[in-house]
Amino acid sequence: MPATPSTGKKLTAEFLGTFVLVFGGCGTAVLATSSTPGSGVGWLGVALAFGLTVVVMAYAVGHISGGHFNPAVTIGAAAGGRIAWKDTPGYIVTQVVAGICAGAVLLLIASGLDGFSAKDSGFASNGYGDRSPMGYSLLACLVIEVLLTAIFLWVILGATDSRAPKGMAPLAIGLSLTLIHLISIPVTNTSVNPARSIGVGLFAGGDAISQLWLFIVAPIAGGLIAGFTYAMLLGDEGAVSLPEAMET
Amino acid sequence: MPATPSTGKKLTAEFLGTFVLVFGGCGTAVLATSSTPGSGVGWLGVALAFGLTVVVMAYAVGHISGGHFNPAVTIGAAAGGRIAWKDTPGYIVTQVVAGICAGAVLLLIASGLDGFSAKDSGFASNGYGDRSPMGYSLLACLVIEVLLTAIFLWVILGATDSRAPKGMAPLAIGLSLTLIHLISIPVTNTSVNPARSIGVGLFAGGDAISQLWLFIVAPIAGGLIAGFTYAMLLGDEGAVSLPEAMET
Amino acid sequence: MPATPSTGKKLTAEFLGTFVLVFGGCGTAVLATSSTPGSGVGWLGVALAFGLTVVVMAYAVGHISGGHFNPAVTIGAAAGGRIAWKDTPGYIVTQVVAGICAGAVLLLIASGLDGFSAKDSGFASNGYGDRSPMGYSLLACLVIEVLLTAIFLWVILGATDSRAPKGMAPLAIGLSLTLIHLISIPVTNTSVNPARSIGVGLFAGGDAISQLWLFIVAPIAGGLIAGFTYAMLLGDEGAVSLPEAMET
Amino acid sequence: MPATPSTGKKLTAEFLGTFVLVFGGCGTAVLATSSTPGSGVGWLGVALAFGLTVVVMAYAVGHISGGHFNPAVTIGAAAGGRIAWKDTPGYIVTQVVAGICAGAVLLLIASGLDGFSAKDSGFASNGYGDRSPMGYSLLACLVIEVLLTAIFLWVILGATDSRAPKGMAPLAIGLSLTLIHLISIPVTNTSVNPARSIGVGLFAGGDAISQLWLFIVAPIAGGLIAGFTYAMLLGDEGAVSLPEAMET
Repeated sequence: MPATPSTGKKLTAEFLGTFVLVFGGCGTAVLATSSTPGSGVGWLGVALAFGLTVVVMAYAVGHISGGHFNPAVTIGAAAGGRIAWKDTPGYIVTQVVAGICAGAVLLLIASGLDGFSAKDSGFASNGYGDRSPMGYSLLACLVIEVLLTAIFLWVILGATDSRAPKGMAPLAIGLSLTLIHLISIPVTNTSVNPARSIGVGLFAGGDAISQLWLFIVAPIAGGLIAGFTYAMLLGDEGAVSLPEAMET
Repeated sequence: MPATPSTGKKLTAEFLGTFVLVFGGCGTAVLATSSTPGSGVGWLGVALAFGLTVVVMAYAVGHISGGHFNPAVTIGAAAGGRIAWKDTPGYIVTQVVAGICAGAVLLLIASGLDGFSAKDSGFASNGYGDRSPMGYSLLACLVIEVLLTAIFLWVILGATDSRAPKGMAPLAIGLSLTLIHLISIPVTNTSVNPARSIGVGLFAGGDAISQLWLFIVAPIAGGLIAGFTYAMLLGDEGAVSLPEAMET
Repeated sequence: MPATPSTGKKLTAEFLGTFVLVFGGCGTAVLATSSTPGSGVGWLGVALAFGLTVVVMAYAVGHISGGHFNPAVTIGAAAGGRIAWKDTPGYIVTQVVAGICAGAVLLLIASGLDGFSAKDSGFASNGYGDRSPMGYSLLACLVIEVLLTAIFLWVILGATDSRAPKGMAPLAIGLSLTLIHLISIPVTNTSVNPARSIGVGLFAGGDAISQLWLFIVAPIAGGLIAGFTYAMLLGDEGAVSLPEAMET
Repeated sequence: MPATPSTGKKLTAEFLGTFVLVFGGCGTAVLATSSTPGSGVGWLGVALAFGLTVVVMAYAVGHISGGHFNPAVTIGAAAGGRIAWKDTPGYIVTQVVAGICAGAVLLLIASGLDGFSAKDSGFASNGYGDRSPMGYSLLACLVIEVLLTAIFLWVILGATDSRAPKGMAPLAIGLSLTLIHLISIPVTNTSVNPARSIGVGLFAGGDAISQLWLFIVAPIAGGLIAGFTYAMLLGDEGAVSLPEAMET
């Protein structure tokens, strides 16, 4: 059995994974959806991209840090007993910083196209009401973000349960993020991840910032609900830590 | 070897899995297919979403309950000797209740868009004849639902056969549901699952309800055909229970 | 170790797998590509469907028969020493019969739409020259069918090599069929499988039948090239039978 | 444990894998994206095709050669200590020759359509500035190619780390190439692989050739950055060779 990775390597893994999640998912939305008809990848391509970021990075570094890449996952995993509460602040700060770095690099690249404006394009930010992609109400946006984050965490905790097939958790967890996006891009542009929302919202500016609270509060609420209920509803005594579940 | 999960945890697993199947699959159809051209995820996105619900939830809770999420699967699994007949009523009632709950939550969210009507939109309900998406006859709809459910069950029983690769059954089974949708959304909007049909059909109302019989009878018939023939046609002596097949 | 499946079960497995391949792949092309813009699944959906038929059925019954579902695969596997030549006629006859049965059932269902004509629609048949979807020449069609079938067989033999990861061969092989379709649907509508071409070509009639020779000769040539060269070019001494490679 | 493959088999594996990568990925772009609206596979199909070439060929021959199929991967793997520097020239020459062969065969097939011109169509070549698909600046193109190749290599080195799940590396690595294409086709038409860029660029001619330098320099720079930093940032002592990581 390999030695436990150092805290520095864990946080590097979280930084890199969250960077790829935000740069890859939001990057696809910003760079590859507006184009001549028939070429752009559409919501389906964006949903696939977000899911693949987690599939890929959880296989790459999940065995180091557990592959959270998302403050709501870290908090839900702590509520579910899979990570110590004392380790959560380092994870969360790292994830938010990585999200902002990804947003900054994406802005640099997107600005390589004449006439690009983060504010005008929305820059893949999340929104409700008049900033919802299709115009969904605050209530609908709140319900779907809490519900889908809770589902996300139940999937994460279940797929890393001691009884679950070894080595398949990254695939299951990543594809659940694709599913979540397929359902909810039209509603909120899909957050379920405060680091993703903050990372691009800061650069979109204006109302994108004033609506950020929902995409911090709702995912965390969903994560807590699932984390605190998993053991009672579904869990086995033999729960394992997330990094272990992503090892051979 | 972990202890056998309690009946309560098994039914909770079936509730959660069926909820995600109906909310995720029908939710994608209701929320994400009608939009400006080039953005909506289309039938391909809906087919992917339905398949992913099963991939994801079977990895998450299949090791608890076997991951049926569908009365036709439960009945076919019983006919194939993988679950005791006495355990089927609890599974089936749970699945139908979960489907209806998912339909209700989806309606709440969809109603967050001004002017939404479950009846007018169809609400992802199944149909034949003039309610078939492309207008297919009752006979065509009956044949395809029986046939595809039988194929679904042969895949489920084969991929969980004692000789099948451990840990891959959830992926194979879920992707078979994507395949089934790719073929048959234009014909019946694809059921192969009475809980899915009832869960949204009740809210679509009117003719959607009067046509529900087909999407209860045909999937169950297909499930029984495959369940009763698997052992003779393809089976090994070493058949395993579905939850075992989804463990490491 | 389970007992070797009987010949009857092997041929049943090949029948069922080939039926699903032709019904699922061609069914998606016939039923789900012509529709209102933005809904039809397009070539991408058809490519995905064909690949998923093999992923799914190879996990379901590959451990019984090796999951060929295609005379060119059976012949290539024999050339590569993975199946005895004496067993190939039974496989091939079963595959062709299954393909024709799938074509017949698909015709029954497609005829449930008023005005459907297998001849006018093409019925997912393969073609070259003026019957190529985009009008590619006979030479281009011949080259691409030989080449892609050879690649298909090199992938099959490599992914079932004794050194390859256990349990992943069905995924790799099926996804290679998706890749093959992504490249070549515009050229020949993609065969690489005589059973698939015959199964729908007979019902499309006319020129579809007179062009069938290419989609019998070219895939078999490609299969033989790969089968006879694999051991020399890439192979290990420890080649395993295909059914073994699809077991746990 | 099987014997180590000979150098000849390793280079054959790299030839075949790189051929499929360039023929399959660029082939999809050249043959299957321009068509009647709604049929062409679009950027999403091209992104999927490129990723599947690596998934499929890494499962087929990764256990022989490590499945690089890309000079930037070979150089990054050497920088990361996973392959000896002395073995890199043979790999790189083989990859570039395979890319050019794939370009030549693709040109033969594409020329089976009346009026086809590699130069006019672009022939899936990479470009920046006025040859960028959407018109991105040289700086944006340089940054994204360096960054995405570095991410590609961190994924490759992480997913083949001794702690990573055995047998899943080909899937993770291939899907990361799909993700990379989803983000960056609009920017540079996506290289991250000099063999892919040279293989079709030579036939596209003119400015495609004069811009090739970027798609040689940037991927190699990205590969070196990731290769030299992996061990310090993320690595375990127990790093394994790439072929080993792709065995059972």
